[in-house]
Amino acid sequence: MTGNIIGERFVVVSFGESHGKCVGAVIDGCPAGLELSEADIQSELDLRRPGVSRVASPRAEEDRVEILSGIFEGRTTGSPICMLVWNRDIDSEPYRMFVNRPRPGHADYVARVKYGGFADWRGSGRFSGRITAGLVMAGAVAKKLLSKTLGVEIMAYALEIGGIRAKNFTLDDIRSKRYNNEVRCPDEAAANEMIKRINEVKEQGDSLGGIVECQVLGLPVGLGEPIFSALDSDLSKALFAIPAVKGVEFGAGFAAARLLGSQNNDPYTIVDGKVVTVTNNAGGVLGGISTGMPLVVRVAFKPPSSIAKKQTTVDLSSMKETEIEVKGRHDPTVVPRAVPVVEAVVAIVLADHAIRAALIPPVLRG
Amino acid sequence: MTGNIIGERFVVVSFGESHGKCVGAVIDGCPAGLELSEADIQSELDLRRPGVSRVASPRAEEDRVEILSGIFEGRTTGSPICMLVWNRDIDSEPYRMFVNRPRPGHADYVARVKYGGFADWRGSGRFSGRITAGLVMAGAVAKKLLSKTLGVEIMAYALEIGGIRAKNFTLDDIRSKRYNNEVRCPDEAAANEMIKRINEVKEQGDSLGGIVECQVLGLPVGLGEPIFSALDSDLSKALFAIPAVKGVEFGAGFAAARLLGSQNNDPYTIVDGKVVTVTNNAGGVLGGISTGMPLVVRVAFKPPSSIAKKQTTVDLSSMKETEIEVKGRHDPTVVPRAVPVVEAVVAIVLADHAIRAALIPPVLRG
Amino acid sequence: MTGNIIGERFVVVSFGESHGKCVGAVIDGCPAGLELSEADIQSELDLRRPGVSRVASPRAEEDRVEILSGIFEGRTTGSPICMLVWNRDIDSEPYRMFVNRPRPGHADYVARVKYGGFADWRGSGRFSGRITAGLVMAGAVAKKLLSKTLGVEIMAYALEIGGIRAKNFTLDDIRSKRYNNEVRCPDEAAANEMIKRINEVKEQGDSLGGIVECQVLGLPVGLGEPIFSALDSDLSKALFAIPAVKGVEFGAGFAAARLLGSQNNDPYTIVDGKVVTVTNNAGGVLGGISTGMPLVVRVAFKPPSSIAKKQTTVDLSSMKETEIEVKGRHDPTVVPRAVPVVEAVVAIVLADHAIRAALIPPVLRG
Amino acid sequence: MTGNIIGERFVVVSFGESHGKCVGAVIDGCPAGLELSEADIQSELDLRRPGVSRVASPRAEEDRVEILSGIFEGRTTGSPICMLVWNRDIDSEPYRMFVNRPRPGHADYVARVKYGGFADWRGSGRFSGRITAGLVMAGAVAKKLLSKTLGVEIMAYALEIGGIRAKNFTLDDIRSKRYNNEVRCPDEAAANEMIKRINEVKEQGDSLGGIVECQVLGLPVGLGEPIFSALDSDLSKALFAIPAVKGVEFGAGFAAARLLGSQNNDPYTIVDGKVVTVTNNAGGVLGGISTGMPLVVRVAFKPPSSIAKKQTTVDLSSMKETEIEVKGRHDPTVVPRAVPVVEAVVAIVLADHAIRAALIPPVLRG
Repeated sequence: MTGNIIGERFVVVSFGESHGKCVGAVIDGCPAGLELSEADIQSELDLRRPGVSRVASPRAEEDRVEILSGIFEGRTTGSPICMLVWNRDIDSEPYRMFVNRPRPGHADYVARVKYGGFADWRGSGRFSGRITAGLVMAGAVAKKLLSKTLGVEIMAYALEIGGIRAKNFTLDDIRSKRYNNEVRCPDEAAANEMIKRINEVKEQGDSLGGIVECQVLGLPVGLGEPIFSALDSDLSKALFAIPAVKGVEFGAGFAAARLLGSQNNDPYTIVDGKVVTVTNNAGGVLGGISTGMPLVVRVAFKPPSSIAKKQTTVDLSSMKETEIEVKGRHDPTVVPRAVPVVEAVVAIVLADHAIRAALIPPVLRG
Repeated sequence: MTGNIIGERFVVVSFGESHGKCVGAVIDGCPAGLELSEADIQSELDLRRPGVSRVASPRAEEDRVEILSGIFEGRTTGSPICMLVWNRDIDSEPYRMFVNRPRPGHADYVARVKYGGFADWRGSGRFSGRITAGLVMAGAVAKKLLSKTLGVEIMAYALEIGGIRAKNFTLDDIRSKRYNNEVRCPDEAAANEMIKRINEVKEQGDSLGGIVECQVLGLPVGLGEPIFSALDSDLSKALFAIPAVKGVEFGAGFAAARLLGSQNNDPYTIVDGKVVTVTNNAGGVLGGISTGMPLVVRVAFKPPSSIAKKQTTVDLSSMKETEIEVKGRHDPTVVPRAVPVVEAVVAIVLADHAIRAALIPPVLRG
Repeated sequence: MTGNIIGERFVVVSFGESHGKCVGAVIDGCPAGLELSEADIQSELDLRRPGVSRVASPRAEEDRVEILSGIFEGRTTGSPICMLVWNRDIDSEPYRMFVNRPRPGHADYVARVKYGGFADWRGSGRFSGRITAGLVMAGAVAKKLLSKTLGVEIMAYALEIGGIRAKNFTLDDIRSKRYNNEVRCPDEAAANEMIKRINEVKEQGDSLGGIVECQVLGLPVGLGEPIFSALDSDLSKALFAIPAVKGVEFGAGFAAARLLGSQNNDPYTIVDGKVVTVTNNAGGVLGGISTGMPLVVRVAFKPPSSIAKKQTTVDLSSMKETEIEVKGRHDPTVVPRAVPVVEAVVAIVLADHAIRAALIPPVLRG
Repeated sequence: MTGNIIGERFVVVSFGESHGKCVGAVIDGCPAGLELSEADIQSELDLRRPGVSRVASPRAEEDRVEILSGIFEGRTTGSPICMLVWNRDIDSEPYRMFVNRPRPGHADYVARVKYGGFADWRGSGRFSGRITAGLVMAGAVAKKLLSKTLGVEIMAYALEIGGIRAKNFTLDDIRSKRYNNEVRCPDEAAANEMIKRINEVKEQGDSLGGIVECQVLGLPVGLGEPIFSALDSDLSKALFAIPAVKGVEFGAGFAAARLLGSQNNDPYTIVDGKVVTVTNNAGGVLGGISTGMPLVVRVAFKPPSSIAKKQTTVDLSSMKETEIEVKGRHDPTVVPRAVPVVEAVVAIVLADHAIRAALIPPVLRG
């Protein structure tokens, strides 16, 4: 299979460019009979909209999803669902200067080499964060499918931005408060600090990285196909497809490397007649298979590469060093807008694995 | 595709169980004309052997690779290469008691649920670390292929064990010293501390986690197929297939989340007429495509779940809490033995992507 | 992978319904640098248009292809190419009566069972011949790619309609005359008979089957990946995806079953310093690999299931036998319109295999 | 995916060479809990053994299947099932002369070009009919799975050999008589004629083609994933992987091309409260989906290419025409031995599609 297609039974195909006609996705393999409207998708799409969060890029996009196929009388038919958002006319000229002067941290240079200079450079083309709109659309379908059939709840949020980490929050806080602030953080005090830090850095023409954490509740035991299609394998594969991701960890993650086995092992116990673990250092996955405990995954985002500060690069025509400034209004951090993207990507992988494990049937009846 | 198969053009199929007849792998898609002998594979396999490292489990295995197909007159033919190591007779009885009392941290419970009680529990069956022998065999072929065609060099080593981190080492140290000590660490002082710490913990009947770092030199620009088959996507997918992995990061990784854009962006410059970056926070991958700089990936391993200490679990027949001790001689840390496994897995993914990018041809001539 | 996606390296995704918003396709994996315009695709699409051939259904569609992504400055970029034709408003009401009274020979009943009654039944939904517009669009790209890089020429034509078989024609006739008549037959005398027979049968409210033959010239030795991705395997798989196909054969095909080995074996000889075969009973494929001789494949099409004559079916609400007449104006035979579809499907598979065999590079330079 | 792997959820990997160490297959995705022994596989394997049928090649092979993995306590575990038969020492020298003088009708020449001269030529290597032993082993598992879970019955038989066609036989004849004669034909009179014809042709040093028909009973409605993974698409793909196959047709097949729609359409009716068709020209598949009627597929086999008669070929070192005789004792027709192979291949595809359609669960309980 080629690179713009993911999944085995719930398959997502991504297409579109930042400054082309549209950005979209096709889902093949969605079970028939799921109630689905454009509103279901629009609500998710609105969460990644730049205008929504004041700390994000103020570029006004009005992304209205359009479903082109696969829905009939308000339900999925079992046929491919093609969805897209049309791009508005945008001035691509500011990007022309980077064709020969690749922006540090961006894919300009590697894309040029890999695609022999034929890649669409307007607005970063296929490497733009805008491509994630397709992921969010597909993820909205996956989320609804998982919710309706298995009662699965997927919640991502800003855990850390610019070194400021959310510490005091409960599951209820995540549920009710994460979208109360512009950074999508369930800990309001931390959120305020994050916003302050973002504004400082923005003024300096710089940018901040951060960590998105995602918890999934209600997942049954048994998703994942070891060894190579382990649940953590496929989740990490999909998460690294999000631009700017540099690390993925489950449960205790990198911290597990510093624990003793006796600390890290999660003892089993019985609660309400069900086998559960007392702790959840595993993050809901053991041997590549979901344990029935909450899935906990953390995703590290690097600071956005587009910064106003002067940077050193090379001029590819003269093969000499030069300097550039990336003007325009850019996100000082991707974390808040990445929150719904992480949820979407997690949902896509879980929907695929739930179908593979026959936990979701090909037709939803009743 | 199903879970025991990975890759698109250099495909690896894993089979075998810990206490079954054998553990093996099939490679489909290896280019024709590569010189390959059992010795090429044996040398890699010997590195993951438990007996090699005194700090590892002393169970004496004599894993002799046997190539069953795909080689003719000392070269690959373009046909599937089936390779295996035969298992020796091993007493599986000690594992019987865990069938109803799942070991914390192991896949016992999830495997039982997923496979309806039919999974082979002897020696952890498919979830045993022994399965990685198949990965190492396939990886040996991938390494040789990458080395012969592109001059790619893949070097993994223990970066951290039990919180002790290697700090002072050069690329030359990695090359020449990592196999000089039992923990496969290029920093000898750190290695000594690690060994001391391992021995302490072993006496306490406990275990240690750690971090394996892998560097790949000589990789051209252009491997990786965004967005979903990004190079980091596919590498992380494969790395999470290794038992006990809980986190994967590239370049600055999770630390990038705390950097400013101006710190994290790698400026371009020209060295010897080639475009390179001054720093390598990207870890050799941007936009999902190899940059031509060294690939740097870190893999977090949890402490082995098999510990001598008493642990709490449940008895699945009575559905009551109970206690178990996992007797026998187990690895106090998987890190040293994981080093060749990480190299193998990285090699498998890179070989696949090099073929996909037409950087390695279907037939090696001359 | 799921059912609406085909290929490994040149991948085609089909979407859309007969009476939905549109019918389209996404290509992922098309090499970068191929000159491509909507006109390139439109010319192929026009050939399958119903209005073009008087013997075909007179329903006036004006299918204008719209390319949504993957093209920049007149060339492919290496990114997914999404293309579609918008559907015009069509009255779907006539199809409602078949929801409970499945039409013999159509997929109405199986679709209802498989998709639990959720399938889009308007105009046969996903089972309409209109879906082949997506194949033709994707095939147009594949044809141009094969032609530009390898000089491959793909020509299909009506070999037989209603038992009348074309007999007297040369390769030049195929090239120059097949589109001179409404049935796309290179033998004009046979074409006239076919047309006469079609008109007779049409008046009787009946329909005719036929055979499309496709020849491919200029194919190098070496396409095909035995054993399962043999060239004939993948071609037949794709050809059976065309509605109404009931048989596929290569070279001597079913007639080979009645030949002696000494008759059927194609002796090798040297022509112009090249190894060729004197005869071509193999039809250009041996052991699943292209031989360098012309590829010859024949595809049997059943007579269209939509006929004006009264037919017996069952009423699924009462579970009793009933009768239906399928009104409207339908194609009395699909053969003429299937000609460009067969070419397209063959091109898609050949492009995929040419890339797999590294005969077409990922970037077309110069 | 690469060429030696087929299927999506019930995946078969083929490996081994004619004169290498072994021929085998790995199944990944077989549901857990299926009772399975070597005897189940051996009985199928014995049917394709050359010694069994006097009209076939008398080369005495004693193919004993060995299961290397995936079975525990007499049942499948859900893990990969690796199976093989070891090759006996065979003299490969007679094949050396064809390295530079490719045998007409064989893959010698295309393999040489495709694999750059590195292909294993001993006994035709990967292109030998012996490779089908792996298919039969995998098919035996698929057949048992289909039989146990869905009661599916798969029966292939010689329909035609050397132009002599079986005409008078019932379903009961197929069940009880097809293995009563050496040609596996349910019509005894035809069988006798076929045997006579085979013996004639054998004496002349020539060979015969034929047609294998396969019927599948008990298949539910709903297998198949249009448009590209249509049931007929995937069956034909797999059938063309069998050496010597030149055509595949379903139901009326090529004859449908000569029928009127009113003749070819299968009217629906109700029998025992079930929707069935009066006729079965569709051969059990409509729109790429199984109809619940018997699946009927016919496979055309060319006459074996190895004939004793003198043949013209070229000497690749001198690039001049030359003559060869293919000595040794070869099958005068592959049809009888192909019968169990066709059953196996059909079973593999149906098992895959039954799992995909969730008609067979991942775990067989009770």
